[in-house]
Amino acid sequence: MKTITTIKEMQAITAALKKKNTLGYVPTMGYLHEGHIQLIREARKANDIVVVSIFVNPLQFGPNEDFDSYPRDFERDGRICIEEGVDYIFYPSVEEMYPSPLSVKVLVQERTNVLCGESRPGHFDGVATVLTKLFHIIAPERVYMGMKDAQQVAVVSGLISDFHFPIELIPVATVREEDGLAKSSRNVHLSPEEREQAPILYQSLLQAKELTEAGETNPNAIISRMRNLIETKTSGTIDYIEIYSFPELRPIEKLEGKIIVALAVKFSKARLIDNLVLTVE
Amino acid sequence: MKTITTIKEMQAITAALKKKNTLGYVPTMGYLHEGHIQLIREARKANDIVVVSIFVNPLQFGPNEDFDSYPRDFERDGRICIEEGVDYIFYPSVEEMYPSPLSVKVLVQERTNVLCGESRPGHFDGVATVLTKLFHIIAPERVYMGMKDAQQVAVVSGLISDFHFPIELIPVATVREEDGLAKSSRNVHLSPEEREQAPILYQSLLQAKELTEAGETNPNAIISRMRNLIETKTSGTIDYIEIYSFPELRPIEKLEGKIIVALAVKFSKARLIDNLVLTVE
Repeated sequence: MKTITTIKEMQAITAALKKKNTLGYVPTMGYLHEGHIQLIREARKANDIVVVSIFVNPLQFGPNEDFDSYPRDFERDGRICIEEGVDYIFYPSVEEMYPSPLSVKVLVQERTNVLCGESRPGHFDGVATVLTKLFHIIAPERVYMGMKDAQQVAVVSGLISDFHFPIELIPVATVREEDGLAKSSRNVHLSPEEREQAPILYQSLLQAKELTEAGETNPNAIISRMRNLIETKTSGTIDYIEIYSFPELRPIEKLEGKIIVALAVKFSKARLIDNLVLTVE
Repeated sequence: MKTITTIKEMQAITAALKKKNTLGYVPTMGYLHEGHIQLIREARKANDIVVVSIFVNPLQFGPNEDFDSYPRDFERDGRICIEEGVDYIFYPSVEEMYPSPLSVKVLVQERTNVLCGESRPGHFDGVATVLTKLFHIIAPERVYMGMKDAQQVAVVSGLISDFHFPIELIPVATVREEDGLAKSSRNVHLSPEEREQAPILYQSLLQAKELTEAGETNPNAIISRMRNLIETKTSGTIDYIEIYSFPELRPIEKLEGKIIVALAVKFSKARLIDNLVLTVE
């Protein structure tokens, strides 16, 4: 495995590789966990070459967010990448990626004012801008992103299709505990009682799935059933339960086609998010 | 020569061609004139395949600008392209390029609030957005743009370098009449007297060049000499004479490195622009 830190070298390598190989790409901010490993494994299965980027992107952090204290451990990340058979880590400095103020940026004008995006103005502009740079630097055939952050998948799906990047976005299913709880570094902040209740979140999503399969097409009916389940069976406070078309993230009155059911629930010391994308016949 | 109207077909062709050929690209809004022909010829000299796009891009017109009445003549453009040995015209409909509202756009945050950009808010966002789409659709090695619109060259240069498009921008020198007047469809609106005076604009740029070569490093001294020449020798009204670093288009106090001297002068029925990029030792 090789670690590359300059844009020029990375572009030269990928241009040479692309002539004979398919290239799968996993963008990360490092501090790799099981979710990332799942992405790497999916990329490893389907591509000749796997590139992981590790870059804590200042552009996607708000002024009051935790860019400086965001956890970093390149040594450990490097070991994981070697174990998982990654071919290249692209690991640029902030100076390498942003040597001077950018004369252009990507503005995300749809899909952002819903779900978690509402509380992070400018966040997805930063994500779309750094990915535009990284997509040109790495030039992959396929990019792998986790469905845990479904809104990010929706935004990047729009970026790729509206700008015609010759890249296929592969959304990878959320990694779950045996009882269905979505894996998250935040789960350790749950009390023992909360940890026991937490799988109800996923169960409420499965309930939504069953209801649509049984012919329910009214989003409010489904949301109210989910709300009832979570409120009676957990001590959490519902932040939102929302249903949109996917990946457009537009409100829908009657469920049909591809939809996302998404929720955020606050427990005493952890806010958990989860979602399920369904196809309604 | 072939005319392609869908993004999908155009991308498939360029992907196949790129394996063995270099591809030169001339983006246009059609109604081709000598300036475009010069770009096509430069592209023809240096590349195996030449692609011209003809697309009147609604995104770069302001609400009070002339999108609907912008001149179009595809038949004539097609004949010119055949004569000049163009391999492909990419000629999409507005519906093909913008089937639904874009979820993302490119925002140009530098290089726009100077020269002609000041009077056209949003214009360069539209240019940068459509070129981001076209660059991915056509995937050229080289893109050819005329220096007549130097600000557009500066903006696209920033787009390519900040986003790391694997594309070389080739600026092509302004085509001039024998007496030095920059060729423009607007020149026909000059009265006979104005047409005689108009070469003074280019002479004032050459004067700026001589002054810098003689060691003048104060932009205001140069601007004042140019102003004097234009005011005494023409009946035109100076809209602006400005000097910036190039391609950054930042104000400079002491001339050094690559700079642009640019002017706009209003005659009775035509506003003429011209510029010269100089390297100050």
